[in-house]
Amino acid sequence: MGPRRGEGFRQHLRLGRKGLAIGIDIGGTKVAAGVVDADGRILSEARRTTPGRDPRAVEQVIVELVEELGRGHRIWSVGIGAAGWMDLDGGTVLFSPHLAWRNEPLRANLQQLLRRPVLLANDADAAAWAEWRFGAGQGEDRLVCITLGTGIGGAMVMDGRVERGRFGVAGEFGHQIIMPGGHRCECGNRGCWEQYASGNALGREARILARANSPVAQDLLAAVGGRADAITGAIVTELALAGDPASRELLEEVGEWLGLGLANLAAALDPGLFVIGGGLCSAGDLLVEPARKAFARNLTGRGFRPAAGIELAALGPNAGLIGAADLSRVSSRTRR
Amino acid sequence: MGPRRGEGFRQHLRLGRKGLAIGIDIGGTKVAAGVVDADGRILSEARRTTPGRDPRAVEQVIVELVEELGRGHRIWSVGIGAAGWMDLDGGTVLFSPHLAWRNEPLRANLQQLLRRPVLLANDADAAAWAEWRFGAGQGEDRLVCITLGTGIGGAMVMDGRVERGRFGVAGEFGHQIIMPGGHRCECGNRGCWEQYASGNALGREARILARANSPVAQDLLAAVGGRADAITGAIVTELALAGDPASRELLEEVGEWLGLGLANLAAALDPGLFVIGGGLCSAGDLLVEPARKAFARNLTGRGFRPAAGIELAALGPNAGLIGAADLSRVSSRTRR
Repeated sequence: MGPRRGEGFRQHLRLGRKGLAIGIDIGGTKVAAGVVDADGRILSEARRTTPGRDPRAVEQVIVELVEELGRGHRIWSVGIGAAGWMDLDGGTVLFSPHLAWRNEPLRANLQQLLRRPVLLANDADAAAWAEWRFGAGQGEDRLVCITLGTGIGGAMVMDGRVERGRFGVAGEFGHQIIMPGGHRCECGNRGCWEQYASGNALGREARILARANSPVAQDLLAAVGGRADAITGAIVTELALAGDPASRELLEEVGEWLGLGLANLAAALDPGLFVIGGGLCSAGDLLVEPARKAFARNLTGRGFRPAAGIELAALGPNAGLIGAADLSRVSSRTRR
Repeated sequence: MGPRRGEGFRQHLRLGRKGLAIGIDIGGTKVAAGVVDADGRILSEARRTTPGRDPRAVEQVIVELVEELGRGHRIWSVGIGAAGWMDLDGGTVLFSPHLAWRNEPLRANLQQLLRRPVLLANDADAAAWAEWRFGAGQGEDRLVCITLGTGIGGAMVMDGRVERGRFGVAGEFGHQIIMPGGHRCECGNRGCWEQYASGNALGREARILARANSPVAQDLLAAVGGRADAITGAIVTELALAGDPASRELLEEVGEWLGLGLANLAAALDPGLFVIGGGLCSAGDLLVEPARKAFARNLTGRGFRPAAGIELAALGPNAGLIGAADLSRVSSRTRR
């Protein structure tokens, strides 16, 4: 390797550290993208509807977003976050629940189309990375992040690296069975944690309560014009924040399940901090306070050990795209 | 630092790598010690009864064992393994369930008495380290070890390091709640995994079966002269190996709970291999085959992911002392 190439490599490193990256968060209904700088700030944003399940159509949307956002910015790399399992190298989607990717070599396809380094990341891993780099998890060397949406996303950042396990599929905390024979889960099992501590669980319990025609569910039913089936976790959260006692009780129950599961994770992983993100977190203390109480009550060895804190995420719904962008920049530096 | 000191330090390193260490495994009833070489072989052994709960008496036994074993060997360092939580630095016992150590600065005390580097390790961590270095876990970069005795000990070896969490108390897999409101656990909670997948659980279920005077429990009862209360997990294991159908069913149930818990750990940690050690493993395939089946049945994402293997430990009951010895040697090299 001659001196010129050496200099080029060093410049490459500097650009990687300081340059801009695009982060793209592919959800089941929408694709959110943004230009992210090295301090985690979003400089510009764009959105699309997720185009069905065809892998080629999703690739096309990614290309359009990068072209649109790339105008006026010098883009170093592109990070893609999606629900699903990426291989350890970040090149292949092994499986994605909402999309039709099965062993899809997405990175190779996209690098050819985009002519830039591309990284694939699990969306929960990306969000955790963002919270560790720029959000509520800064400075923690054993961080566990939980994303509470329709289900539970999970990720660990240990010693400044996303811990992804042997095959790249670690962090599926939501599919720990905490109630054998319990509620059926989309994953095919019964009694998974995310059937008890998630937006879906909140909505399900509220619908059951409303259908039972309990007097405590009057306000809930009124809010959906009497159609119990129309109740969602988001509606319950909104009513709880507005003061509805039944909705607050429902959130409290979900919070208690959340705390129990966190105690299980603390027994196994002993993190310094749990960061709780995702849509359900708009409930704030109505969710997190019961979780803290249940965590303290269910932590094994309580009183004889230091215990992890439980804090709300700081970056909101953009954590995934910020983290995907930043991971793509960091990774393209070290992988080269 | 002058050249002579540098040379001394290098010699120190070589000795650390090649020298002998004593490993001491402090159990609730007995203290086992051995001289262990750098290949994990035990050159000589000694045993004592655990002297009650007085910390000074335990220290005295350790000193006696080191003196006894040290004759004729050049001992580099001493590693102590015990059930309990050691601080991250390996100097202080935070808490030990069977012994009276509470924030006990055991290493400082012992280094003064023994005039050698001393390391304290959790017994499950020590056993996992031994299996990774010399036993069934060699070559695995994401190894989870489970020690099935009266309870469940757990430990992780990741990238060639024991993963101990933020405060040093990770790996307490046995206290993950998998049955809310279930059997009371010694830790103060209900429904911990070790209440379903351990020697204690096996004994308890067998006693319940025997007391119910079920015809299937005839052989079990006969083996203990009709005294159901005398049935232990070890007796059930022995009868199962001898062919008693009821004892085999009981072991199968414990194996199924084992497999379910391993599936939970795989969801969270995604290891390459589980190594199962401890006394209950004398049951061999009678335990492990049902565990493998239940693991395969309960693993989230099965069919869309590579899955960890489940293997029996290779080093038997000496894993703890071998690992404690080896950790003390490795650690005294890097800590110095």
